[in-house]
Amino acid sequence: MKWDDIGDQPCSVARMLSVIGDRWTMLILRNAFMGIRRFDDFQKSLGVTRHVLSDRLKRLVEYEILVKAPYFDRQERFEYRLTDKGFELYPIILSMTNWADKWMDQGLGKPLEYRHKTCGHKFEPVMVCSVCHEPLHAKQVQVSAGPGYFAYIEQKQKQA
Amino acid sequence: MKWDDIGDQPCSVARMLSVIGDRWTMLILRNAFMGIRRFDDFQKSLGVTRHVLSDRLKRLVEYEILVKAPYFDRQERFEYRLTDKGFELYPIILSMTNWADKWMDQGLGKPLEYRHKTCGHKFEPVMVCSVCHEPLHAKQVQVSAGPGYFAYIEQKQKQA
Repeated sequence: MKWDDIGDQPCSVARMLSVIGDRWTMLILRNAFMGIRRFDDFQKSLGVTRHVLSDRLKRLVEYEILVKAPYFDRQERFEYRLTDKGFELYPIILSMTNWADKWMDQGLGKPLEYRHKTCGHKFEPVMVCSVCHEPLHAKQVQVSAGPGYFAYIEQKQKQA
Repeated sequence: MKWDDIGDQPCSVARMLSVIGDRWTMLILRNAFMGIRRFDDFQKSLGVTRHVLSDRLKRLVEYEILVKAPYFDRQERFEYRLTDKGFELYPIILSMTNWADKWMDQGLGKPLEYRHKTCGHKFEPVMVCSVCHEPLHAKQVQVSAGPGYFAYIEQKQKQA
């Protein structure tokens, strides 16, 4: 299978990776969550080439994860803001951070600390079940085909 | 900055991406969480070349995310099992799934449904604060430099 066909699978992980699976894209998003909005600031903070940055930002705007909005600084310029769709990527960034904080801290402790303004405490993110609110572990989760799987198969059969 | 230098930043997202930021690697992990363990089964399910699969599995073993263990099927063969470090990647996979279930279902509904064996219900994963147990939103999280950041800077200054 070629990478370009991956997003066409009836699988949400594959679809998600087809959009933001690029590594620079994830770092652009990390920086967007840190409050960076301007092209030059992304470029300086990432050290990525302008060509690659421009390409990745364009894709993020096409996918409505970022929106390009004007601001004035003597002359009109543009900045990139997270949309609602973009903001909802936060659990992915947080869970990546939490994993590497634990397993890849080089024995030096966490590079960044996170405080929850709502309760005022330093925290770790915990993934829980929306029904019973208990932490989720892979071995306690049963997966089965959903409506989107059957609809996808039906669609493909009609096309064939 | 070159990609190979990314993992050396004092940033957990960058470190995590330096290990499993490759897109095939994420799909291999998705399949490992679905219960796939054998080289040929990974290869058939992903349609990836044997060369790429072999390379990615080797890296995952080096990083102790998978362990290569023998099993017998007439002759001795090997299978790849998630380690504890690997199992703890589950919130990343779940949060990717959840995002694309919502934003990329092509109007067909979820491709897969998830049931929590512990409570018996279909669920969605929710990322909550470990202290107050409320759902986490990016705007309510304050980030500051942690011990790993200062130790990293000190280490670099000594090396210079």
